[in-house]
Amino acid sequence: MTEPRWLTEDEQHVWQAYLALQRELQGAQERQLERDSGLSTADYTLLVPLSGAPDGLLRARDLARRAGWERSRISHQVSRMEKRGLVAREECPDDARGSMVRLTESGRAAIEAAAPDHVATVRRYFFDPLSAEETAQLGKLFDRMLARLALDSRDAQEIQ
Amino acid sequence: MTEPRWLTEDEQHVWQAYLALQRELQGAQERQLERDSGLSTADYTLLVPLSGAPDGLLRARDLARRAGWERSRISHQVSRMEKRGLVAREECPDDARGSMVRLTESGRAAIEAAAPDHVATVRRYFFDPLSAEETAQLGKLFDRMLARLALDSRDAQEIQ
Repeated sequence: MTEPRWLTEDEQHVWQAYLALQRELQGAQERQLERDSGLSTADYTLLVPLSGAPDGLLRARDLARRAGWERSRISHQVSRMEKRGLVAREECPDDARGSMVRLTESGRAAIEAAAPDHVATVRRYFFDPLSAEETAQLGKLFDRMLARLALDSRDAQEIQ
Repeated sequence: MTEPRWLTEDEQHVWQAYLALQRELQGAQERQLERDSGLSTADYTLLVPLSGAPDGLLRARDLARRAGWERSRISHQVSRMEKRGLVAREECPDDARGSMVRLTESGRAAIEAAAPDHVATVRRYFFDPLSAEETAQLGKLFDRMLARLALDSRDAQEIQ
């Protein structure tokens, strides 16, 4: 292996700031959600795609993909939410091994009640400190990083 | 409550890109760490501050603060790492209820072996797609968001 290219002091600073932002923002969101709605961020992560789906219904595998989670994590979280009446499991009509997850009325009421304060938190910490130009710039940089990640992930799949 | 200020389409895009970057980058780091070093990102998170501490020794509570974790999570993770010989628990000389965590020789060897490839992954996906000016700009925006979060967190503590 060649000599590692360690991060410069400036890069270290940006990297630590990125990690801190992730941690602090997630903490602020969790505290706000629990205080105002009794939902966890895991609940919220699944309720959002379900509430946007026709009839509030998604295949478990599509829900996993939308949340970016492993199937096993989805399964555990859906069980917890099912007990609290937020979602219901259904059989998949055209795939005996597949299962569907449906948003219940009470689940829809919960996400609709939680959404305004959740969005206000995102706005307060993420968007309000930035100008419109800075927001656009940030999006451009994130997109470029994501393109690199997607390229490598595609290459890795082709090798397999 | 006033009418919620929903995110605009552009803001939605930036927010989703931020969440995707978090997920994809963490996934890439986890795969790289496990493949090349047999460490998890949780192991790595604790090994980094320990390896930088004098004698590889930190109070459990300082380790928790440095990792941004709850004490209970630190305790579970330290137990797992202790079984694998990466760290050792010690009593705190000046606080009977406190405990210390010490990096073992094998823990130091593990983090030293893992660090170059871990940094290369961060560099590849996070810094290589950006120019030096863009990196500096990103740091400036993150710092501004963090300042807002820190301000509110300080206010919240004063109210308590």
